[in-house]
Amino acid sequence: MESAEDRLIARFFRPLATHPGALGLRDDAAFLVPPEGQDLVLKTDAVVAGIHSFPDDPPSALARRALRVNLSDLAAKGARPAAFLVSAAFPGTVDEAWLQSFADGLRADAEEFQCPLLGGDTDRTPGPATVAVFMVGWVPRGQMVQRAGARPGDVVMLSGTIGDGALGLELRKRAALAGQWGLTDAERDFLLDRYLVPQPRLGLADILRAHAHAAMDVSDGLVGDLAKLCRVSGVSAEIDTTRIPLSAAARRAVAGGSDHLATALTGGDDYELICVIAPDRAEAFRAQAERAGIAVTAVGRIVGGHGEPRFFDAQGRAMTFARGSFSHF
Amino acid sequence: MESAEDRLIARFFRPLATHPGALGLRDDAAFLVPPEGQDLVLKTDAVVAGIHSFPDDPPSALARRALRVNLSDLAAKGARPAAFLVSAAFPGTVDEAWLQSFADGLRADAEEFQCPLLGGDTDRTPGPATVAVFMVGWVPRGQMVQRAGARPGDVVMLSGTIGDGALGLELRKRAALAGQWGLTDAERDFLLDRYLVPQPRLGLADILRAHAHAAMDVSDGLVGDLAKLCRVSGVSAEIDTTRIPLSAAARRAVAGGSDHLATALTGGDDYELICVIAPDRAEAFRAQAERAGIAVTAVGRIVGGHGEPRFFDAQGRAMTFARGSFSHF
Repeated sequence: MESAEDRLIARFFRPLATHPGALGLRDDAAFLVPPEGQDLVLKTDAVVAGIHSFPDDPPSALARRALRVNLSDLAAKGARPAAFLVSAAFPGTVDEAWLQSFADGLRADAEEFQCPLLGGDTDRTPGPATVAVFMVGWVPRGQMVQRAGARPGDVVMLSGTIGDGALGLELRKRAALAGQWGLTDAERDFLLDRYLVPQPRLGLADILRAHAHAAMDVSDGLVGDLAKLCRVSGVSAEIDTTRIPLSAAARRAVAGGSDHLATALTGGDDYELICVIAPDRAEAFRAQAERAGIAVTAVGRIVGGHGEPRFFDAQGRAMTFARGSFSHF
Repeated sequence: MESAEDRLIARFFRPLATHPGALGLRDDAAFLVPPEGQDLVLKTDAVVAGIHSFPDDPPSALARRALRVNLSDLAAKGARPAAFLVSAAFPGTVDEAWLQSFADGLRADAEEFQCPLLGGDTDRTPGPATVAVFMVGWVPRGQMVQRAGARPGDVVMLSGTIGDGALGLELRKRAALAGQWGLTDAERDFLLDRYLVPQPRLGLADILRAHAHAAMDVSDGLVGDLAKLCRVSGVSAEIDTTRIPLSAAARRAVAGGSDHLATALTGGDDYELICVIAPDRAEAFRAQAERAGIAVTAVGRIVGGHGEPRFFDAQGRAMTFARGSFSHF
């Protein structure tokens, strides 16, 4: 007399619940034993099909995005993943193939990031598939890297390359742009993939804790996110946009016009990290990040004052942006 | 240059984020320091407007339901609340008055249950308002009360009264039933309120840990939920339905026909606890629960075997039910 909901959970999600605290998803709740001397880091972020994805994205990509946007926040806080829970509302159009792809995506990333499924909840919705992930991480006691803490004189560093996700999103919306930008097929696919599957920079977590005064992940656009970090730190920043790391594909798109640079800097979906480091630690940070396989680039300085961060172009002029960052409202 | 989303969070949700680990909702994530010797208990359950609520329910009731269904699970596991996060997707029809009522509901219950808001996420959705709560609780190391653990001979006890929520839901769907059942206005309002605002039995948490072999909360109907507990414990049960505690209002409804008894036993939305106790501890459990202000009633026994639990009527006949428990699928 198991219900259809129980059978759905048993078939698609129980195979992922390998952690003993998940109790095989057969209990009301899960348990987790905190390691000695560690604090919890907690985060929730949701993806809504059609808002954060396209109808023809595989369900596995929706699942992986839901996990990775949360893992990216753990990385920015200097934390390592412990486990996750997922609350998913599915429309009636979701069939077994959809669920299998979705579960496969969760499983692949749970294994890749050693972050097991601990529990969850499934509901029906007349709306689009809505997947809220609840991420649990650990950080040594009192050492979570916060947004607040940037000090005048600190170096602003960025991981990876900026703008790929936003440009990949533009390509998804208008395929003809690849030709206009003169992208090779490989460059086009690179940008599309950077949008579809974010890369959480968990390899930087320990290094951030050792060196950073403040950090956050870039999810809503560099311009707006840096402004948030500065605001809560009570400082401002000056950024040399010619030093902002761009991929070869993004450079080609940006060469097509300054509006594409604005897209790259404000468009979001980067899931790179803003790291704010004392000047005498910047080189050690860069070298350790490099050993961890992650390029980081100094792009400017924290300065005093409460104004919005300023982004200077190649001619030394402060740029203006029509919109600072992504907002749902 | 704060975004509309930032302003929404600042206005409606920051006032609730009084816990230091919430960092004023101005960071990527929250932190929480585990108390010495405690395990984490983690749970997520979501409410979808129109599925778990009616269009004319106040948004505050949706918020309180979202919190309380999760707190009910903590109670069943012998845990006390630590904090919660909330991931909410709002349709375009949600205005400031709606958000204020929703936030007021969260705040009232966060205060009542000493369970502060630690973080969250807001999104737009073309679907109905969807609110996933992520609940964090503490339990002394290794002492979470599980569903598995019931042993033949154990007494099955229930907190409070069963069926009020399911009958209240019927009343919401057909107001004329109140007259057919011969309810007083107070009885009608009691049932409606039992549906609208679940009462998590947190007062039983410590007592459960001291006495119970197994426990779970009754959210999807007593018949189906007891079957789940038995299945995972590898046992069955025999229940005397004449001993199942019913409120005066529910007794009146059930007197109207045996189908209403079936509604009460299978309909869900009770948020009472099933407690499975060794016979020699049952009286101590009952007495301690009474001192905590919560009535508990022995309704049957755990027996060996793997069959579905049997529910006997006043004539000693095993009852059959058209559906065992609520399922979204």
